[in-house]
Amino acid sequence: MAVGSGGTSSRSFVSEIIFSRLGNEHLLKASDAAIVSTSGRTAFTTDSYVVRPEFFPGGNIGKIAVCGTINDLLVSGAKPLYLSFGLIMPEGYPVADLERVIDSMAEECRKADVKIVCGDTKVVDKGGCDGLIINTSGIGESLRDYTEPYNIQEGDAVILTSDVARHGMSVMLARGELGFDGEVLSDCACLKDVFSAVENLNVKFARDATRGGVAAVLNEIASDSGKGFLMRETDIPMDENVGYLCDMLGFDPLAVANEGLAVIIVSEEDAEKALSNICACENGQRAAIAGRVEGKNVILETSIGGKRHIEMPAGELLPRIC
Amino acid sequence: MAVGSGGTSSRSFVSEIIFSRLGNEHLLKASDAAIVSTSGRTAFTTDSYVVRPEFFPGGNIGKIAVCGTINDLLVSGAKPLYLSFGLIMPEGYPVADLERVIDSMAEECRKADVKIVCGDTKVVDKGGCDGLIINTSGIGESLRDYTEPYNIQEGDAVILTSDVARHGMSVMLARGELGFDGEVLSDCACLKDVFSAVENLNVKFARDATRGGVAAVLNEIASDSGKGFLMRETDIPMDENVGYLCDMLGFDPLAVANEGLAVIIVSEEDAEKALSNICACENGQRAAIAGRVEGKNVILETSIGGKRHIEMPAGELLPRIC
Repeated sequence: MAVGSGGTSSRSFVSEIIFSRLGNEHLLKASDAAIVSTSGRTAFTTDSYVVRPEFFPGGNIGKIAVCGTINDLLVSGAKPLYLSFGLIMPEGYPVADLERVIDSMAEECRKADVKIVCGDTKVVDKGGCDGLIINTSGIGESLRDYTEPYNIQEGDAVILTSDVARHGMSVMLARGELGFDGEVLSDCACLKDVFSAVENLNVKFARDATRGGVAAVLNEIASDSGKGFLMRETDIPMDENVGYLCDMLGFDPLAVANEGLAVIIVSEEDAEKALSNICACENGQRAAIAGRVEGKNVILETSIGGKRHIEMPAGELLPRIC
Repeated sequence: MAVGSGGTSSRSFVSEIIFSRLGNEHLLKASDAAIVSTSGRTAFTTDSYVVRPEFFPGGNIGKIAVCGTINDLLVSGAKPLYLSFGLIMPEGYPVADLERVIDSMAEECRKADVKIVCGDTKVVDKGGCDGLIINTSGIGESLRDYTEPYNIQEGDAVILTSDVARHGMSVMLARGELGFDGEVLSDCACLKDVFSAVENLNVKFARDATRGGVAAVLNEIASDSGKGFLMRETDIPMDENVGYLCDMLGFDPLAVANEGLAVIIVSEEDAEKALSNICACENGQRAAIAGRVEGKNVILETSIGGKRHIEMPAGELLPRIC
């Protein structure tokens, strides 16, 4: 059951596991580079994934690697087209686990109509790494530009496309270090449907709220644009159990990582239309208009009517969350 | 001296180390995706680098990560334009080493006129990995197609753009496990000059001879094209000391990894012109026409006039060579 003991046989075994699941005319050619068609403006992104455990309720490292990179293209305003993947694994890694991971990658690519066109596999000694590490880079056709913070203006609406904090809490519980049972489903998902739903509306800016959560995204935008936000606690979508869990553990749910939640800033006029379009999507059912662009600071109006700053998360709350 | 103890300060420290060295208008924007201009046909490639030791005579993991991905674009017939990088390091990794690695990446990018436009850094616990892991993906403008094995035909010349086996032997000696001193300079280099030198000639196919060396490349082409090669041992460029070392350790120099050597197959008519152009390049001084396309098998005519098959390397001779 060991992949990567070295030698031609194990290397071709890895190729078989991958090619049979992800194969397409580009990948199967196994050239040094894939040659693909693109138009004049291309979005290009990369992320490495080191999440532990590799499998958690609602996803695994392969699903996250594909969805995360596709989402990075979507939030930039691009149509995702092609992915690369770089797989690193320790010798002796269980084949069945590798197959599950690659199956998830293939499924998400199929759903998003994206192709993995080039890849690379490295097998290292057991001490080299403690499990799978996956890099996915992606290119897409840049159709709109959602990356320019100067486009936002006072009064624009802030839409959260899903309920907050599920991915971070899911992984934390899956680590089994808290001394109690239970599970939270990660929100890990590709947001292609959500971004299709707003493509004809006046979207000013978008970013997915991964490490550092919604708090980090809002503070980054504020820092880059010079504009602030007023968020309303009662309008922030959150699963009740996730809320209890954050309370109990002392986490600010706004600072916890998501893997299927984008912050989309839309003009005031288009806000309601955007929300209803997003809510009609499989991955946007719990979306909400949770605040607006206002002032210079990032402020939360609490459920009891007080106001507090939403701070930039100071440290990595949960290492290896993605 | 520890990077990656967690928290905003150490994360911004990493950014500073990287941005100050690699910064350009795309990278500094720190968007989810960089938006770059491309034309109709794009070459796309990826590789992860896990070489140990991270520093060896003639290069380091950063230099190899940039040169290797640029070379993958060049051998496909593309003009390299943009790179991504994904950096993974264990907490406590020495800052000075990280700086040397990033400096090398910056220098190679500058020399090749290529920009790193997007990136991602993950810090894992000490047990997560045993040192730096770098992924670089790259996109380039596909101007010619050197990836099609069916283009080659009987009589075409096989040019090796440098002397064989230096990278593998360099890393092996640098590991210090052989019980004797001495060093070999790796051939790690970006082959942009070499490919510029042949861009107007009839290049049929190209591939860089990394893992598995020249032997793997020739066997792959033979397998994909149905055509064979007759290589002449006396015409294969090799440093005398590298040759002694391979002899002593029982390595076939044709199966040892290179990081600055491409196999370029050129029409018979253009072979001499290609060779003289390549030899005029900094990275092509030791180039040679070392064989030709002939028959169905991959054959070496030895220095004493015998003939033997050049076999596909059966196993990974040296793990973590790149």
